[in-house]
Amino acid sequence: MTNTQHEGLDLSQVPELAAQLRVDSIRASTSAGSGHPTSSMSAADLLATLMSRHLRYDWDDADAPGNDHLVFSKGHASPLLYAVYKAAGVVSDEELMTGYRRFDERLEGHPTPVLPWVDVATGSLGQGLPDAVGIALSAKDLEKAPYRVWVLCGDSEMAEGSMWEALDKASLYGLTNLITIVDVNRLGQRGPTDLGWDLEAYQRRVEAFGARAIVLDGHDLDAIDAALAETDGDLDKPLVILAKTIKGKGYPEVEDAEGWHGKPLPEDKAAEAIDGLGGERHLLVRGPKPPEVERAAPEVGTASMPTFEKGEEVATRKAYGAALAALGDADPRIVALDGEVSNSTGTGTFVEKHPDRFFEMFIAEQQMVAAATGLATRGHIAFASSFAAFLTRAADFLRMAPVSRVDLRMVGSHAGVEIGADGPSQMGLEDLAMFAALQGSTVLYPSDGTSTAALVQQMAETSGVSYLRTTRGEYPGLYEAGEEFPVGGSKTLVESADDDVTLIGAGVTLHEALSAAAALAEQGTRARVVDAYSVKPIDAEGIRAAVEATGGRVVVVEDHHAEGGLGAAVLAALAAEPITDLRFSHLAVDGVPGSGTPAELLDWAGIDAAHIAEAARSLLEA
Amino acid sequence: MTNTQHEGLDLSQVPELAAQLRVDSIRASTSAGSGHPTSSMSAADLLATLMSRHLRYDWDDADAPGNDHLVFSKGHASPLLYAVYKAAGVVSDEELMTGYRRFDERLEGHPTPVLPWVDVATGSLGQGLPDAVGIALSAKDLEKAPYRVWVLCGDSEMAEGSMWEALDKASLYGLTNLITIVDVNRLGQRGPTDLGWDLEAYQRRVEAFGARAIVLDGHDLDAIDAALAETDGDLDKPLVILAKTIKGKGYPEVEDAEGWHGKPLPEDKAAEAIDGLGGERHLLVRGPKPPEVERAAPEVGTASMPTFEKGEEVATRKAYGAALAALGDADPRIVALDGEVSNSTGTGTFVEKHPDRFFEMFIAEQQMVAAATGLATRGHIAFASSFAAFLTRAADFLRMAPVSRVDLRMVGSHAGVEIGADGPSQMGLEDLAMFAALQGSTVLYPSDGTSTAALVQQMAETSGVSYLRTTRGEYPGLYEAGEEFPVGGSKTLVESADDDVTLIGAGVTLHEALSAAAALAEQGTRARVVDAYSVKPIDAEGIRAAVEATGGRVVVVEDHHAEGGLGAAVLAALAAEPITDLRFSHLAVDGVPGSGTPAELLDWAGIDAAHIAEAARSLLEA
Repeated sequence: MTNTQHEGLDLSQVPELAAQLRVDSIRASTSAGSGHPTSSMSAADLLATLMSRHLRYDWDDADAPGNDHLVFSKGHASPLLYAVYKAAGVVSDEELMTGYRRFDERLEGHPTPVLPWVDVATGSLGQGLPDAVGIALSAKDLEKAPYRVWVLCGDSEMAEGSMWEALDKASLYGLTNLITIVDVNRLGQRGPTDLGWDLEAYQRRVEAFGARAIVLDGHDLDAIDAALAETDGDLDKPLVILAKTIKGKGYPEVEDAEGWHGKPLPEDKAAEAIDGLGGERHLLVRGPKPPEVERAAPEVGTASMPTFEKGEEVATRKAYGAALAALGDADPRIVALDGEVSNSTGTGTFVEKHPDRFFEMFIAEQQMVAAATGLATRGHIAFASSFAAFLTRAADFLRMAPVSRVDLRMVGSHAGVEIGADGPSQMGLEDLAMFAALQGSTVLYPSDGTSTAALVQQMAETSGVSYLRTTRGEYPGLYEAGEEFPVGGSKTLVESADDDVTLIGAGVTLHEALSAAAALAEQGTRARVVDAYSVKPIDAEGIRAAVEATGGRVVVVEDHHAEGGLGAAVLAALAAEPITDLRFSHLAVDGVPGSGTPAELLDWAGIDAAHIAEAARSLLEA
Repeated sequence: MTNTQHEGLDLSQVPELAAQLRVDSIRASTSAGSGHPTSSMSAADLLATLMSRHLRYDWDDADAPGNDHLVFSKGHASPLLYAVYKAAGVVSDEELMTGYRRFDERLEGHPTPVLPWVDVATGSLGQGLPDAVGIALSAKDLEKAPYRVWVLCGDSEMAEGSMWEALDKASLYGLTNLITIVDVNRLGQRGPTDLGWDLEAYQRRVEAFGARAIVLDGHDLDAIDAALAETDGDLDKPLVILAKTIKGKGYPEVEDAEGWHGKPLPEDKAAEAIDGLGGERHLLVRGPKPPEVERAAPEVGTASMPTFEKGEEVATRKAYGAALAALGDADPRIVALDGEVSNSTGTGTFVEKHPDRFFEMFIAEQQMVAAATGLATRGHIAFASSFAAFLTRAADFLRMAPVSRVDLRMVGSHAGVEIGADGPSQMGLEDLAMFAALQGSTVLYPSDGTSTAALVQQMAETSGVSYLRTTRGEYPGLYEAGEEFPVGGSKTLVESADDDVTLIGAGVTLHEALSAAAALAEQGTRARVVDAYSVKPIDAEGIRAAVEATGGRVVVVEDHHAEGGLGAAVLAALAAEPITDLRFSHLAVDGVPGSGTPAELLDWAGIDAAHIAEAARSLLEA
């Protein structure tokens, strides 16, 4: 290796930088009246050494493809991160002092990508390292770029299982470009951590999960520098630096003291601490430049999407797999992840065609979403799939995706009681509610192969978190190949000039609604049937028109709990400009299902054709 | 120790039992047409030895307080569990052959507590062991009973971080009564697992997390028996038995073969396999009896609940802590858990008074909910708390709670943008949607100290998952001490005979609605203000009456995303019998917030008094 990594500060100058980082962490948080100075001070020596001598970063070009990445998994130490940005000259001292934690400013309480140097939002502990695994996967297996991903973790967050999912996958995938630094300052928010300063326990765990561990004194700059310099050589495992540190280091009154988590120093103590640290400094420091890396623009062709015939029986989960594989043929940015169920979710079809762009996350749904998040920050179009029920495992990671401003494509199979004999643990009955409640999300729920393929294609171009809900069983195609399904639209499958009632369904319940309409027709009742394939955004205008045309009578039926799903979306749409004489009937799953055949369970849940027809008749009799 | 544990079969007879378990696993799944025989066959030798010689269980009394507990973390191996029940004589061969996976039968695809011998539902992998930690905690620290908790895990599920959270807590709390058996059969659903048969890797991980590991051949009955017999002595650590097994063991054609996960054997292969295993058997086998254990009925007194004055400023999170501590004074069944933020959630007040009934789960929300689940199965009234945002981490565990038929009391603090400077990662904006979508859940959202205390008291008596949403800031008391707040009710705080519009809020937005009403009154507009402290069930009748009395005009305002929260609950209530001329205005959080003061962020989100008043005026002008 070259010695470019030492073009920053001489090691003898690092203490001055570390003091500046501590002083600025104190100043920023005291001026803001909140924040975590002591959690910043413990890691100041680590960051000063890293940013001045090892982090290869072009501060004038945050998007330089050769840049290393720095993920603050302990996001509450944001004063330290922002102090680093000041030292690098990209944030002014004035911004640090007047912007931190203020309204409409970018130096938020926890880092988010509104800052160009931040890849992913952190602040929900246990997410930064899993996200970083996705970035490192991109570097190693997709970009094949020499950059490294540095992650600063707190010791408290090592209690999150997601951290061990991350290390497991880091070692499985040989991510020697991932360097995890754990700031073991012994104290969490309300007191000592689980393992305290038992560095050996951390070491045993980290090594058992396949990483190389270096234990050091996190305030010994020589030791830190030597450990960081290990990354100049060839590593054979992910590296984890376990740094024994002192919370509040640099101001004796708060060092290793309980009761100072998340508290700024009062003005007088801040002044005393700053004085003791040698006062304010305004060093400008830049470390080594990144290597020149070319990143070619992807060659994106036109996808040759699979087609399905009207009447052809196909499971939407299989149609999804075929559609994704086709997208992957045309666009090298398409990647897929799955939670060890790709033979069930449909993703297996993609895996067969594009094994080099598939990442098996095994049964670790949190890491699956985190890896997708990291991959998305690097420009990949990531689809991640599992059973709809098991995607709830990653709810907190999904919640953070909009804060990270990433585009994620999630696919949940085995929706609802329709799955049958496997029973309630495998039934997605809360997934629509979870995805719909995410900021800026899109929720799609196709009922046949043609609509599935059309929606999957649009998901690839949809920003934010988009979710596709698929069904286990095979149902007949409802549309001719080539039909279009714009996000935010709906389809009317059955209608006449004088319909009596509107039936709205999606997925399996749309097929049941069609059967109900046929049965009603035999009795002389004309039902309009609407395919609400776009649950969010819902086709408010189309649905309103249908309900108004049918005398305000509408039955919404869904294979999901009553809360937060299709019925709620329809009601919200209708409430915008209420309909006189609305007669709303909502059929959804209530009670805990057991096993059974799909037909038995749809009947039990009261969402099959017979119940839909009955609900429609009740509305007409009312 | 006595040798009662060997009162069951002689070890030489165990192979016959093991063959029976394999045969019955094949028969049950083939007859059902679905299920996981090969995943059952790998663990048959382990279970035959355990149930016949070590599991201390009174099969005539599933509630005997001295009974060991057997948790099938790999719930898909249900044929094996049910075959064990048949061998114990509590399930008939007929039920096994005609009930398994059938509608309206109790032998569901994955075990649930509709069966008296099942403690918790499994089937979402990675949950059984965490749940078992809660049962073992109860035995050791609360019941002080000698029973053991045996857990059968799959190897695939060791990829879930939650399993490591569980082992971490098991060792931290010294749960030597917890015996984990990992059935390392190398094959997951779609192919080999992450670690395959690398038993040493599992051993290193398990030991690093503080457990004692025994590696053995899971088909060597002597080795299995010797390992299980270790539990007769005094253990100093949780024991993990890592058993190398062969998936499908007993029928050579499917042994260690891919493509047989979750597939019953076809009739012909089943017949061949059963023949090879020596045919059907109907052994009745009971192992050692449990020790006699007295469990005294708890002495429950009358709680002396804290009182708060009208006008007194208090944060509902603090009122929650005071109320919980008071409940704990009166009822020894009350226990609490927290995710290392008890000084923020309010739970710290309980910790100070009842440290022996508090379990610190550190930053491991999944394990927190799992431990609460396990504790709940043992009759404890468990409250578990963290920031509302971070409870999403445990969404899959919460989803499974209704399937486990447990009562859980969840408390989420720091709801919404009201928290201010910490920013979006710490803001609960999806929590109402998550909790409301759970089967049979109760969602409560108090606005002052008096209502908080009243609702916490009721939560202790509420079945299912109940959720209390609390607020960070201090707000003035709205009610006199002693006011009652029935679940499913609402309160009208401001009203007159001729109100123009109804304002509905809860938590911080109720206070904003009151300010809005005051401002509107100054302009001559009479607003009725409703406190919707019970979000689910919502007071449909009361809210309907208020909206009807105000000309159909209603503004619902919430510090939550628009989907799945208070607005959705109000709409669903109003839709049951629609109101003519409904004019519905919904103010909720849209967009990704940043940092700021609570006032700035409430304004930014459009949910403060000024925006509420403006929305009310718009309705009146419409």
